[in-house]
Amino acid sequence: MLNKVVIVGVGLIGAAFALALKRGNGARTVIGIDRDAATLAQALACGAIDRQGSMADANDADLVVLAVPVRQMGNALLALRPFIAAHTLIIDVGSTKQDVCAAARAALDVCAGQFVPCHPIAGGERHGPLAASAEMFVGKNVVMTPLAENFASNIQAVADIWRQLGAHVIIMTAAAHDAVFAAVSHLPHMLAFALVDELASRPNARVFFEHAASGFRDFTRIASSSPEMWRDVALNNRDALLAELDAYLARATRLRQSLAEANDAELFAMMQRAQQARAQWLTGQFEHFRDDAA
Amino acid sequence: MLNKVVIVGVGLIGAAFALALKRGNGARTVIGIDRDAATLAQALACGAIDRQGSMADANDADLVVLAVPVRQMGNALLALRPFIAAHTLIIDVGSTKQDVCAAARAALDVCAGQFVPCHPIAGGERHGPLAASAEMFVGKNVVMTPLAENFASNIQAVADIWRQLGAHVIIMTAAAHDAVFAAVSHLPHMLAFALVDELASRPNARVFFEHAASGFRDFTRIASSSPEMWRDVALNNRDALLAELDAYLARATRLRQSLAEANDAELFAMMQRAQQARAQWLTGQFEHFRDDAA
Repeated sequence: MLNKVVIVGVGLIGAAFALALKRGNGARTVIGIDRDAATLAQALACGAIDRQGSMADANDADLVVLAVPVRQMGNALLALRPFIAAHTLIIDVGSTKQDVCAAARAALDVCAGQFVPCHPIAGGERHGPLAASAEMFVGKNVVMTPLAENFASNIQAVADIWRQLGAHVIIMTAAAHDAVFAAVSHLPHMLAFALVDELASRPNARVFFEHAASGFRDFTRIASSSPEMWRDVALNNRDALLAELDAYLARATRLRQSLAEANDAELFAMMQRAQQARAQWLTGQFEHFRDDAA
Repeated sequence: MLNKVVIVGVGLIGAAFALALKRGNGARTVIGIDRDAATLAQALACGAIDRQGSMADANDADLVVLAVPVRQMGNALLALRPFIAAHTLIIDVGSTKQDVCAAARAALDVCAGQFVPCHPIAGGERHGPLAASAEMFVGKNVVMTPLAENFASNIQAVADIWRQLGAHVIIMTAAAHDAVFAAVSHLPHMLAFALVDELASRPNARVFFEHAASGFRDFTRIASSSPEMWRDVALNNRDALLAELDAYLARATRLRQSLAEANDAELFAMMQRAQQARAQWLTGQFEHFRDDAA
């Protein structure tokens, strides 16, 4: 059991981490830090944190969790730096990793070895501690992208904590992480934001939304995600995301061209490839996917 | 109660219509027609239809339901034409309406007044009668786009049938229908197909699908839809869909530009507009949407 855990940012993920830790008796005391008083009050009310605190609480903490939007990681790490004890583990839960690794090295200097970068593939489009659940990480992947400076024992300790919360731990390089999640997460978020914005901007927006149904609802669910969080993710994974946007726009433009030419064979082939790939994915038949890079 | 109903195409929607009708004692006998023997057998096995039949069964039917992909509507109507009795009502359940209206006029000639075009906004990405449910239309909208030739009594009778199945009936022009659903349904389907196809086509496809999670799953759910059905929808609503694809690609390209320029204010504004519009939609606050055209 951890004696003292400090959560910096007690929104959806920070509060869920705290709740999950407490449910499993993983922590004696959980301290919350947040720039927003209402969020802090909610995190207290739902039992995620025991009290609010400050970065100074880190000086006798076993674990500090940074759960702020990724462009705030650097400042949070700088504010934390003076209070880090020799035994303190630090993790983040950000959706981008190369940027956070760089920020950690810049801010923590010789303490960077105590910082183990993490990205739990969990959450959802709702915000704030009231949407958090102690079950949020059960059965979910957590990607860890260790720094070369990390002691193996620190990596192991962090992995053990995630496993206690029910998660599967995956180790990747930060660059591989950012490339993969640009495609399967960051890109779809951009595409969903763009569709809702496009329709909402029209003079006759109302008629579209009145007729939108379940297909539209699921397709755009992620467009209800936090704009602040996703602006930060997009900017901090800009190169990979631009490459994904370009690849997607080229593919969608090809589909448009097939349609303009009434090329029914090409349209059908594209839709069938997609339908079959998704069926294989859903049934875990990954052997059908090309993996030339393996 | 209808004495005899003929369902042409007993896939997901055709079978669901039959099941819903039978559950409410809305039909004495339901006859199924399908090009695919396995689909017919499944529709029989699940109790959607009482027996298989042929277009000749239409000659003493009260209602014929055309539930085939929209590019097959013309041929189905031509095959049906010789067997239409004076009292027979005919409806379709296609996702495009101007094309189906034109096909009905061409095929049915003086009987066109007996054909009432319908589009139930229901279904899902699964196919076939085994995925059908008697509840499929409960609480869902059904858009009717009557022909000028329709008798008011026929429109009324068809609306009453849909209401018996639990649906809300909405009357629109076929042109308005096709424009609205190009944006809120046909476009998202194309965008989802394009994303899955793009990732599946890569040499290292496997690594992407292995890390795809719930955001990706919901965004791409509609890419599991029938390629045949959606190729037909795309081609038969081509002009409206091309216009929507162009508007969307322009919007996504603007987002790409904001990202390339690291214009955080513009990125944030676009995401926030989308997030707020979606929140208003989910809570039914349509008064916040512009409706200059009203």
